[in-house]
Amino acid sequence: MTTAAAPRQLHLGAFLFGVGHHIAAWRHPNVDPAAALRPAHYKQLARIAESGLFDAIFSADTMGLPGTPAEALSRNVPPHQFEPLELLTALAGVTERIGLVGTVSTTYLPPYHLARKVATLDHLSAGRAGWNLVTSGSDPEAQLFGLDQQISHADRYERAREYVDVVKGLWDTFEDQPNLFDKAAGRYFDPAKLHRLAHDGKYFKVHGALQSQRPVQGYPVLVQAGSSEDGQELAAATAELVFTAHQSVESARTFYASLKGRLAAHGRSPDALKILPGVSPVVGRTEAEAQEKYEQLQALIEPSVGLGLLSHFVGGFDFSPYPLDGPVPDLPPTEGWQSRQDLFLKLAREENLTLRQLYQRVATARGHWTVVGTPESVADQLEHWFTTGAADGFNIMAPTLPFDLQDFVDLVIPELQRRGLFRTAYTGHTLREHLGLPRPAHPAQR
Amino acid sequence: MTTAAAPRQLHLGAFLFGVGHHIAAWRHPNVDPAAALRPAHYKQLARIAESGLFDAIFSADTMGLPGTPAEALSRNVPPHQFEPLELLTALAGVTERIGLVGTVSTTYLPPYHLARKVATLDHLSAGRAGWNLVTSGSDPEAQLFGLDQQISHADRYERAREYVDVVKGLWDTFEDQPNLFDKAAGRYFDPAKLHRLAHDGKYFKVHGALQSQRPVQGYPVLVQAGSSEDGQELAAATAELVFTAHQSVESARTFYASLKGRLAAHGRSPDALKILPGVSPVVGRTEAEAQEKYEQLQALIEPSVGLGLLSHFVGGFDFSPYPLDGPVPDLPPTEGWQSRQDLFLKLAREENLTLRQLYQRVATARGHWTVVGTPESVADQLEHWFTTGAADGFNIMAPTLPFDLQDFVDLVIPELQRRGLFRTAYTGHTLREHLGLPRPAHPAQR
Repeated sequence: MTTAAAPRQLHLGAFLFGVGHHIAAWRHPNVDPAAALRPAHYKQLARIAESGLFDAIFSADTMGLPGTPAEALSRNVPPHQFEPLELLTALAGVTERIGLVGTVSTTYLPPYHLARKVATLDHLSAGRAGWNLVTSGSDPEAQLFGLDQQISHADRYERAREYVDVVKGLWDTFEDQPNLFDKAAGRYFDPAKLHRLAHDGKYFKVHGALQSQRPVQGYPVLVQAGSSEDGQELAAATAELVFTAHQSVESARTFYASLKGRLAAHGRSPDALKILPGVSPVVGRTEAEAQEKYEQLQALIEPSVGLGLLSHFVGGFDFSPYPLDGPVPDLPPTEGWQSRQDLFLKLAREENLTLRQLYQRVATARGHWTVVGTPESVADQLEHWFTTGAADGFNIMAPTLPFDLQDFVDLVIPELQRRGLFRTAYTGHTLREHLGLPRPAHPAQR
Repeated sequence: MTTAAAPRQLHLGAFLFGVGHHIAAWRHPNVDPAAALRPAHYKQLARIAESGLFDAIFSADTMGLPGTPAEALSRNVPPHQFEPLELLTALAGVTERIGLVGTVSTTYLPPYHLARKVATLDHLSAGRAGWNLVTSGSDPEAQLFGLDQQISHADRYERAREYVDVVKGLWDTFEDQPNLFDKAAGRYFDPAKLHRLAHDGKYFKVHGALQSQRPVQGYPVLVQAGSSEDGQELAAATAELVFTAHQSVESARTFYASLKGRLAAHGRSPDALKILPGVSPVVGRTEAEAQEKYEQLQALIEPSVGLGLLSHFVGGFDFSPYPLDGPVPDLPPTEGWQSRQDLFLKLAREENLTLRQLYQRVATARGHWTVVGTPESVADQLEHWFTTGAADGFNIMAPTLPFDLQDFVDLVIPELQRRGLFRTAYTGHTLREHLGLPRPAHPAQR
């Protein structure tokens, strides 16, 4: 039996981030800055995203506060982030279908704990969990765990790859449907379906069994956001969804082709991995209204806060001696977020930006693409990226929350639906089903 | 102004554990063994416990599956435990007032992660979180984290004490009410109210800041269950609620006096720590009905399962060469759960139990006190312990779930209320308020 292939449609993530991705969001007149501290705010965002039929909510994370001095930090984004998997568990309780992607770093948490946390979220949400694998990228994070500075970029990624093997091994402790529930014989499960892990690797030695049934999705969806060379290699081997930051369609296309092109070497089809660039949409009923919204936010950025944001992403480099309206200085190589540093420098050089212009470009959504316009023009731009080999969808980074997420749902989603580019109802129940990804069988049952 | 002191009342915990604490619970005709795997089951238990006005739900935990061979394990308790803090987050969403105590070991999780998990639960539940500090007690747990065997009992407890200091230091990252929300000046919080931790101790080096407002309760309630000498010293220094296992009122009184007597040396009042022995209630409308319920469960214990349970608690000692109806052999000293091993041996020697009799006694609730009787006689026994210096309340370990928890709520709670021994409505909103414990001020605000 063959059926006509369904038309290719966008996949959309709703990236939750306090009261908005714009660094000055909390100062916007519409925004309640205290909302970033309240669980009810995130429940509201989850409900809005589900009403918009998003594939998933996405919750970012870093460890601790940045190393920024308290004076500068107190002017910056709200200094609060709930533990992502507990937050997503709470959001699972107020939603029915939307996927729930939580960020957990491989660098400072033993893989047993990661495997268990993500498996539990998958069970508690009936198969809606995703794990966004990051490796952490700053010395202040390392210092929370007894180190003076972070381990090298290459080591973090090599270690992460082994980490994924361990986590999958623990998720595979039990085969699917292992239980007999045989009260008469006193046999709860079939002992032949229990597989204890015995992993002795370069970075990890893990022997034992996860006290969990296999996750509902087999493996929760593996997500990654690293776009460096090391990050792309890890993603090609393991990821099913990739978030990435690009300022131009050309850059996004180059990345898309590069990453999709690496899959064959791992025996994977191009469809096995979906690429979602981040985009920060500023939508107005007219172009002028959209532009006014954008400029109102941009005017709220304090220079010290803008420079602090740049500094945070480039290994703590101190920009304060450099004139705001002069060129962006050269930066030393980093062991931190390499792809983000490369993105910033490329942007500055290609467009000959001053330091002030660079932080203004970066401040809307930490270096992600910003689109400003009417619902039609925003949809045009998303469609252009989607149909010309730059994206399988987008991770929506609303500048203010809940306002710009609600506007996207009310104004842009219907336009995408009219064009046949986005679903008009959920057809699946699990995140894998939303993304069109198959459920991995247990190795013993393949 | 003085008011008459409120009469002393019981504090009650509802200890959730799969489909029941009795090792053969899953084989009972009333019990659905698959319920242990379903989130809805735990939501039902939480609602029952809240309808009974319990102070808290209690979720136990160990890491991974026991080292028991698969054949024996497959006959044992359901091999599934959700990650406790995510489970409690889900239960927070279906309850309003009941406290939520989750077990997390200090031995295999960096303190940053613990501090964050528990703080997040406290925020997501509006101040209902408690942390049950355990140190883990078996080699199979250590083997999930790269070790061949666990570190020594004494080292685990010394380490745990430093761990608590680190966790409190991270919870104190911000003072209470640190925020200015000053949009005009661009100042989110008062930088003077940010306190980065700089801890350099024997076991931990932790520098940085938790990205969290101070927990709603200041510190979530600190709970412990270790009753060994090391465990009592740790509890006297840090715990506010202690779970403990005793088979007789005399043993419970000795422990109660010993632990309460240690508090003064730490500058603490006896009221600053509540002691809740575990109790497994088998309640019937008549004594005969209760006895029949009890014997029905006891008859379902397979000898191999009973011996496996004993073995699990005493460092994996192999009882299989010993005759079931002969005496309990001497055991080598353990680096595992010392107080539990001592309890088992004392019980066997004092009552001259055979191996079979010992596992039968232990199988109802892993060594905790079992009471069998009518609502009146069960209440009599609880009241006797409560009024003669053996307990401040009890952790209720229902042999089958939800059935025996529902029976306790329907039959015993009203009897305790008639006697003025238990609340007839919640008066507080946080777990601290239920327990009558003060909210700890921030060190900079004391």
